[in-house]
Amino acid sequence: MERIKPRTLSGFMELLPDKQAQMERIMETLRKTYSLYGFAPLDTPIIEASEVLLAKGGGETEKQIYRFTKGENDLSLRFDLTVPLAKYVAINYGQLAFPFRRYQIGKVYRGERAQRGRFREFYQADIDVIGDGELDIMNEAEIPAIIYRTFTALGLKKFKIRVNNRKVLNGFFASLGLSDKASDVMHTIDKLDKIGVEKCRALLLGEGVPESKADEIMRFIAISGTSADKLEALKKYVGKSEIFDLGLKELKAVADYLPAFGVPEENFEIDLTIARGLDYYTGTVYETTLTEHPEIGSVCSGGRYDNLAEYYTDKKLPGVGISIGLTRLFFVLEEQGMLSDEVITAPADALIIPMTEDFSKAVETATLLRENGISTMLYSENKKFKAKMSYADKIGVPFVVFIGDDEIGQGVVKVKDMRSGEQVSEKPETAALRIKAEIDKRNTGCVIKD
Amino acid sequence: MERIKPRTLSGFMELLPDKQAQMERIMETLRKTYSLYGFAPLDTPIIEASEVLLAKGGGETEKQIYRFTKGENDLSLRFDLTVPLAKYVAINYGQLAFPFRRYQIGKVYRGERAQRGRFREFYQADIDVIGDGELDIMNEAEIPAIIYRTFTALGLKKFKIRVNNRKVLNGFFASLGLSDKASDVMHTIDKLDKIGVEKCRALLLGEGVPESKADEIMRFIAISGTSADKLEALKKYVGKSEIFDLGLKELKAVADYLPAFGVPEENFEIDLTIARGLDYYTGTVYETTLTEHPEIGSVCSGGRYDNLAEYYTDKKLPGVGISIGLTRLFFVLEEQGMLSDEVITAPADALIIPMTEDFSKAVETATLLRENGISTMLYSENKKFKAKMSYADKIGVPFVVFIGDDEIGQGVVKVKDMRSGEQVSEKPETAALRIKAEIDKRNTGCVIKD
Repeated sequence: MERIKPRTLSGFMELLPDKQAQMERIMETLRKTYSLYGFAPLDTPIIEASEVLLAKGGGETEKQIYRFTKGENDLSLRFDLTVPLAKYVAINYGQLAFPFRRYQIGKVYRGERAQRGRFREFYQADIDVIGDGELDIMNEAEIPAIIYRTFTALGLKKFKIRVNNRKVLNGFFASLGLSDKASDVMHTIDKLDKIGVEKCRALLLGEGVPESKADEIMRFIAISGTSADKLEALKKYVGKSEIFDLGLKELKAVADYLPAFGVPEENFEIDLTIARGLDYYTGTVYETTLTEHPEIGSVCSGGRYDNLAEYYTDKKLPGVGISIGLTRLFFVLEEQGMLSDEVITAPADALIIPMTEDFSKAVETATLLRENGISTMLYSENKKFKAKMSYADKIGVPFVVFIGDDEIGQGVVKVKDMRSGEQVSEKPETAALRIKAEIDKRNTGCVIKD
Repeated sequence: MERIKPRTLSGFMELLPDKQAQMERIMETLRKTYSLYGFAPLDTPIIEASEVLLAKGGGETEKQIYRFTKGENDLSLRFDLTVPLAKYVAINYGQLAFPFRRYQIGKVYRGERAQRGRFREFYQADIDVIGDGELDIMNEAEIPAIIYRTFTALGLKKFKIRVNNRKVLNGFFASLGLSDKASDVMHTIDKLDKIGVEKCRALLLGEGVPESKADEIMRFIAISGTSADKLEALKKYVGKSEIFDLGLKELKAVADYLPAFGVPEENFEIDLTIARGLDYYTGTVYETTLTEHPEIGSVCSGGRYDNLAEYYTDKKLPGVGISIGLTRLFFVLEEQGMLSDEVITAPADALIIPMTEDFSKAVETATLLRENGISTMLYSENKKFKAKMSYADKIGVPFVVFIGDDEIGQGVVKVKDMRSGEQVSEKPETAALRIKAEIDKRNTGCVIKD
């Protein structure tokens, strides 16, 4: 037979079982945390009609899209989870209750130039709250709590949720008479972290911002201190722009409710340089950075927008949302050695190795363990003992259960704890309880160490 | 602004939140049950190189494939989860431990003619055990236990796991001197359920099977009674074909281990008419039917095969696997009214409605409930009381928590059980424990009622 060389496309992540187990744990943690905040899971097709998906049109993204025809249909693979959400809400407007809170963890596709750490197929994990006409600032105030709990549940400790408000920036620019340049200026100050103060100022001048105003902008974004300090300093700007004043009130609300939401101050920061590249944000904007890995950039970003589905409906649908680029985050965590090897990644908690011809007792024990919630594998291949133990080692199973004629005669099983090497002969029911308790203990750990 | 009419492609399932919640519950049940049997989760790309995906070539499937080019790459969307598994095992052969047990729940794509209940994008939920060179019959014997536990965990009661063995059929045909016609004959008797005895016999004659042998075949597949009766009746055929004798031994092993695996006899049946359409099955084959819905056909099928990855590697990789067509199953369950409305499908367990301007107490209560594992939504929109309650009704939330000045003064919250209408004022900590206990109780139910 002629053979084809098997390969996985470049830019597509495909993990070995132990890594996949860690990825699954991350996804399960996200699902659980998002649910805790009342977000409903949503699943939309990966393929959409191009005309629908590209309603907004243009832009960098369009070139990257996987677009093709099938029969008479012009189809595209989704490149984010926001456009499908907009479509979904527009179609189902009459059947949804607003505010509509949904999470979606799904694959999206972008035909970017393949390079290390860049993926063409990758998971995004998004949450959004969509209002009907209006959406209270409390929804924006709650987002840091969701980020905090998600990251903490994953095991991350050293992270900072950085928050700004586009109205504060827009209002400030308006008070300088720079409203027409606001978008350019924001893109420039968004780069401050990367390019530094001098270059940032030079870029502003290059954009036609007068020197005095560029200095004002640089002073503004240099406001430092705690969040309280910054809010205090911002008071000086009040009264020059209604937009600014509203933005400051919103920013203050977000900061004020943090303690009630259980977010520690050290994980939060008001950062006046954050503008987010996207032009459609209109209120609070969020970025989240790993304190010891600033080079990674933001790993969870988003913000408030005014009009989710304007390409599909005349209904005004404001919302607030955040997104985690899960595949890239996983890649980075692995590369940084931040994935814990404490949590169990074996496909099973227990491996039963029968030492008799008849497997009935081994099968009964497997059934008993499973009924006790212990993930159990039965090793039934006809191999030498050494090969069986080498299999146990290779899959990294925490417990091996031996069942031979002696054990059957005495009504016991022999359980080996593969970590300590300790072997105990005990009643199957006793073994089940002991293994379950030990597994539960080991499973309390987080998937990320930080 | 010019608006595009939003739509979801025909043949693509997109569910409303309450239905999606049920679908998620089904998927979570599958993940848990498969894990319990030591299957590791696997995730492979949806896009593969066409040359790799279509290595086997030809067939009905190829016409249905979503195939396109991107840049210089000839790409295809996966049409099942078996070919990607074969690719994965061939690529990672050296790093996997065999037997390799994996489950995968993922979307696959087939551009079939769109019609009601047929999907172009649909979930398959597969498990497979892959051996290296050899694979013991115990792996085949364990499959009915996995099907039984999966279906039971979903809430299905009236189902039958029907099992046969291809060696029994092949050996029997060989003993009749019909080896060269075995494939045609098997396809014909596979249709017995649909076309009936007379038509089946006529088809056999049409295929050139002599009348006496056709009668022998019809007698063979008419063997009836319990599984034990059938095994007994099959003994009469022993000694004419080595393949048959081995197949009978395997079939007996599968039946014999059922009690130890915890599978009740009423959910199991040896069915000599099952051949499965696919030619590559070589041992035990499985179908699972809902007893009261025979018209649906098999909802979980599979079997033993000898060579998973022959198109990619000269390594012999025998395996056994089963597959559930999840999207279609969900569609059918919904249509038959078999999805339970007892389980909670609301996006949250509790909705907090603050009755004060300042939301601090409400937020603190939300944080407390969430810390107790209660999925909680905070209603912060500025609406009339009636609109707030109508929101609670629309999302179907089990508990509403009111926090007004009176409650804050007394250090209590007012909790309304939306099912009973009962209202209780109690300490937030007490409310948290009571709501959690009630929610846990309601969540013990299964997603399917049967």
